[in-house]
Amino acid sequence: MQATIILGSKSDRLIADKVKEVLEEFDIEYEIRVASAHRTPELVKEIVEKSNAEVFIAIAGLSAALPGAVASLTIKPVIGVPVSGKLNIDSILSIAQMPPGIAVATVGLDNGTNAGLLAVQMLALKDKKLQEKFIDSRKKMKEKILKDDEEVRKI
Amino acid sequence: MQATIILGSKSDRLIADKVKEVLEEFDIEYEIRVASAHRTPELVKEIVEKSNAEVFIAIAGLSAALPGAVASLTIKPVIGVPVSGKLNIDSILSIAQMPPGIAVATVGLDNGTNAGLLAVQMLALKDKKLQEKFIDSRKKMKEKILKDDEEVRKI
Amino acid sequence: MQATIILGSKSDRLIADKVKEVLEEFDIEYEIRVASAHRTPELVKEIVEKSNAEVFIAIAGLSAALPGAVASLTIKPVIGVPVSGKLNIDSILSIAQMPPGIAVATVGLDNGTNAGLLAVQMLALKDKKLQEKFIDSRKKMKEKILKDDEEVRKI
Amino acid sequence: MQATIILGSKSDRLIADKVKEVLEEFDIEYEIRVASAHRTPELVKEIVEKSNAEVFIAIAGLSAALPGAVASLTIKPVIGVPVSGKLNIDSILSIAQMPPGIAVATVGLDNGTNAGLLAVQMLALKDKKLQEKFIDSRKKMKEKILKDDEEVRKI
Amino acid sequence: MQATIILGSKSDRLIADKVKEVLEEFDIEYEIRVASAHRTPELVKEIVEKSNAEVFIAIAGLSAALPGAVASLTIKPVIGVPVSGKLNIDSILSIAQMPPGIAVATVGLDNGTNAGLLAVQMLALKDKKLQEKFIDSRKKMKEKILKDDEEVRKI
Amino acid sequence: MQATIILGSKSDRLIADKVKEVLEEFDIEYEIRVASAHRTPELVKEIVEKSNAEVFIAIAGLSAALPGAVASLTIKPVIGVPVSGKLNIDSILSIAQMPPGIAVATVGLDNGTNAGLLAVQMLALKDKKLQEKFIDSRKKMKEKILKDDEEVRKI
Amino acid sequence: MQATIILGSKSDRLIADKVKEVLEEFDIEYEIRVASAHRTPELVKEIVEKSNAEVFIAIAGLSAALPGAVASLTIKPVIGVPVSGKLNIDSILSIAQMPPGIAVATVGLDNGTNAGLLAVQMLALKDKKLQEKFIDSRKKMKEKILKDDEEVRKI
Amino acid sequence: MQATIILGSKSDRLIADKVKEVLEEFDIEYEIRVASAHRTPELVKEIVEKSNAEVFIAIAGLSAALPGAVASLTIKPVIGVPVSGKLNIDSILSIAQMPPGIAVATVGLDNGTNAGLLAVQMLALKDKKLQEKFIDSRKKMKEKILKDDEEVRKI
Repeated sequence: MQATIILGSKSDRLIADKVKEVLEEFDIEYEIRVASAHRTPELVKEIVEKSNAEVFIAIAGLSAALPGAVASLTIKPVIGVPVSGKLNIDSILSIAQMPPGIAVATVGLDNGTNAGLLAVQMLALKDKKLQEKFIDSRKKMKEKILKDDEEVRKI
Repeated sequence: MQATIILGSKSDRLIADKVKEVLEEFDIEYEIRVASAHRTPELVKEIVEKSNAEVFIAIAGLSAALPGAVASLTIKPVIGVPVSGKLNIDSILSIAQMPPGIAVATVGLDNGTNAGLLAVQMLALKDKKLQEKFIDSRKKMKEKILKDDEEVRKI
Repeated sequence: MQATIILGSKSDRLIADKVKEVLEEFDIEYEIRVASAHRTPELVKEIVEKSNAEVFIAIAGLSAALPGAVASLTIKPVIGVPVSGKLNIDSILSIAQMPPGIAVATVGLDNGTNAGLLAVQMLALKDKKLQEKFIDSRKKMKEKILKDDEEVRKI
Repeated sequence: MQATIILGSKSDRLIADKVKEVLEEFDIEYEIRVASAHRTPELVKEIVEKSNAEVFIAIAGLSAALPGAVASLTIKPVIGVPVSGKLNIDSILSIAQMPPGIAVATVGLDNGTNAGLLAVQMLALKDKKLQEKFIDSRKKMKEKILKDDEEVRKI
Repeated sequence: MQATIILGSKSDRLIADKVKEVLEEFDIEYEIRVASAHRTPELVKEIVEKSNAEVFIAIAGLSAALPGAVASLTIKPVIGVPVSGKLNIDSILSIAQMPPGIAVATVGLDNGTNAGLLAVQMLALKDKKLQEKFIDSRKKMKEKILKDDEEVRKI
Repeated sequence: MQATIILGSKSDRLIADKVKEVLEEFDIEYEIRVASAHRTPELVKEIVEKSNAEVFIAIAGLSAALPGAVASLTIKPVIGVPVSGKLNIDSILSIAQMPPGIAVATVGLDNGTNAGLLAVQMLALKDKKLQEKFIDSRKKMKEKILKDDEEVRKI
Repeated sequence: MQATIILGSKSDRLIADKVKEVLEEFDIEYEIRVASAHRTPELVKEIVEKSNAEVFIAIAGLSAALPGAVASLTIKPVIGVPVSGKLNIDSILSIAQMPPGIAVATVGLDNGTNAGLLAVQMLALKDKKLQEKFIDSRKKMKEKILKDDEEVRKI
Repeated sequence: MQATIILGSKSDRLIADKVKEVLEEFDIEYEIRVASAHRTPELVKEIVEKSNAEVFIAIAGLSAALPGAVASLTIKPVIGVPVSGKLNIDSILSIAQMPPGIAVATVGLDNGTNAGLLAVQMLALKDKKLQEKFIDSRKKMKEKILKDDEEVRKI
């Protein structure tokens, strides 16, 4: 297992799907779990302690305590994804404004894709092949935009 | 022990002093502890589990996870006090926007006084004398404003 | 009567339904009233003074003065629920930012569930059976998440 | 008495001074009172009911319920002045976002001057002399800016 | 003509309808005009100068300069209604945060009803009958809530 | 005259100084005026109509109507500079959120430097020498940062 | 080529259509390109360096780095259009709050129309005919509002 | 070189000092550079391309484009630190709200400490000793809080 994805609530699955898509593109093994920092703190602890993941991705909305809770339980890097709701600024700031000492790598609102990419970049630090794959993926992304550019120019 | 006050950081003591002042006015026994939800989750757990307090008051700034963490560990009511900083909206929303299931009674920014009063009101539910004292205290508060009114009118 | 729920407007009933659901789960007697702090202050006063409730839950949107108005009329604990609208930050801050002296226990936006739970926690301070029921209810909540976790893991 | 100024707290006097300055310039009789919507609702009621003012000016910070409370007790126009603090958006929105049915004329943050001017404009509706004085005052204001313009141009 | 309603854009008519409803309830004569502070400043000037209204109601969204523009052209009281859009805080603050010297009476977002009521309250300063009608109208409003209260209690 | 700088208030002069510094560096002739959109709309009109400037720079805080007012009176490009205060978001949004039809080129809060540079860039569209000077100025700016980089690297 | 429009993403085309409509009304030649500051910085560079446009319009949402990136690569004026999303304040501030030294002319959220008009105003600085056309266009805009005013008055 | 720290401006050095302190505690080699995404994009490119760092830390305020610019130039993980100013929400959102495809690991406002810790956690993925050191460091952090707890309890 290289990555453990934890959802604060089953309803956050759509964001998890974006993470999955990236991890599968890069053949990163992962597990997906549901555990709430506030409602099942013991389950969060159990998942983190049993996991042999190199990187954790925690997805949560509202007062999104999950990423910080995971980060306090492991020395592996933790990526936090704020989930959109009625305010949005609540989940972004709850994840980003961690106190000095326990760090969470915050990505943008609902941005499961970037959470996945950041996880890959971390794992690639010790995996040359993954680095090459990542360079390829960036090329594809650029080609996609070049194609969009061609399309839009013609109109 | 009737109340346990937990500070997310030693630097939050000025807010705790406002809570103390209220609790002492009402002869409520209390203890004050420092424990960080993110940096010492085990200490938070230990404090909450060992405490025989009827009500908890958790004081924290930034991404203020402490009140929610305490609430997830006890069935006693938990009062959360957001501490001011560079943004302010971060600590207010981190404490107020709890997910359904684990409730925190949020008071205003730096408002240790109201946290103390709310604790007294809860404890007074089963203590007639405390209710009477509370009514007296409200009278004094009103008298203070009536005096302010007198003073300002004369000018 | 153990709890009085007051809605600032009939249109806030959906939030009241979440409170009701919790109170009924715990066999707490309650009444539901409609009274506006701004449009019918006398009715608010009458309701609060006639009520023998141990705890009040006030639900209001916009410039949500109702919870503060109720709190100024009783020494029982008052829980305030901000209702969502076009801004959201208006009702949250109107309820949370009470002046020192009159406290309101603010819960999250539209979070009737947590208002109900907080009321139960306060009432449980003098009711062992309610405490046990509350512990049971937390267990069920955890089991629900454990089941969600099982479900999501399989996918 | 033509105007009654009510402060939510004695500490709001600096804002009241700006109102006074305007009212005195226009020879409007006024009284200044201190009464808190949350801490002394009866005093607010007493002041409003005893007052024979044509217009009320209510000055308050935080969750600024005072202007709305005054408005609910009188059919005279009520002007609300939000007072600055750590958030500012709290007092502005608490005063501006009144529910349909009870109106408050909100002016800008700490803007006692505009509260005074608005009061004068309302009173001038039935007072030709006040209208003329108001036109004169606007002229002076313009002359002040013309002078500033002269000064700055020379530099 | 007692009131002139000016819309910053034809698309703001729904808010104007709420003002109309109130003014018609109180038999206040009014005219409705469309004029943009930014796109037709001369038309704004012409409307204000030709109008013999006692009170102006200006309705505008985005950077809502219209209420301030009207206020700078008349000594009659001007009521500003912020119109909702993608941000909302833009129109509220553009209308509320006027510089000292030119006052606008700001009401809540889209709150045409309160703009109408505030206009009536100002006009009632010199019209006993209007005052009585206003008192009646408040009674009806209260009865409406009392009826809502009856209805909700029964459920 | 190539540029006219208008301040909403004499107190905005510090921001104007930053504009001046840039315009003088590029030998752009300018005048500085004080005129308030709300308090002296006629003066704003007079200044704009008499000016033969190619570009206008309007500096204002709070509900900053000045840039939009200037833009509605000229077909020359208008640059708006929001001035900081207690809220900041008020002046930024009042200037940026113009309705479709009258455009203002908004720069950052208190950013007189960028207002000056933008004016130069517009004037350089028909002035080759100014373009060359601008390229030189960018080089100096880069050299400044390269020097900062050298300095910081050594530490 | 007089104007180059760059979209941060193909999905921003609706905003570009508003710019196009204005440019075509004024017979301004333009090209539309897609290039992301973050995903294809080299393409942004290539487009800017190869373009002989007199003015650039960059359209982007979220953390909208594109307008600033374009501005850093050219001495021609750059107009930035923030695109709406879940927060809105992110794209507005990312474009408006440029550091002193590299200026972007920010227009309102999704306001492609004003971006087009601002471009025309800049180009008109050296084109008398364009100035006349612009004056005509403003007349039409005013006539449109006058017609709206007629329509609304009749109702 | 294991880490490259880039400041958007020399004035951000105080935040860099917090990063340095952490990196030196863990014996991580680093370099500190100054380069602005907007003012010296070529220098940013040169630094990133010449660097053999495993992780980049980019520190910037206002419209903080630097972290995203660095991330677009490397496949190594990039940590972004928003710097406080007059708004604060500008730099936080400019860094956090990256478009899908180029990820930045955002930490809290001015939180150089967490940026350093996150860098160490990433580097520790392939360095057992660093992992042990990190565990030790967490212990010290906890001991510090335990000591604070002791101190506060005694009072």
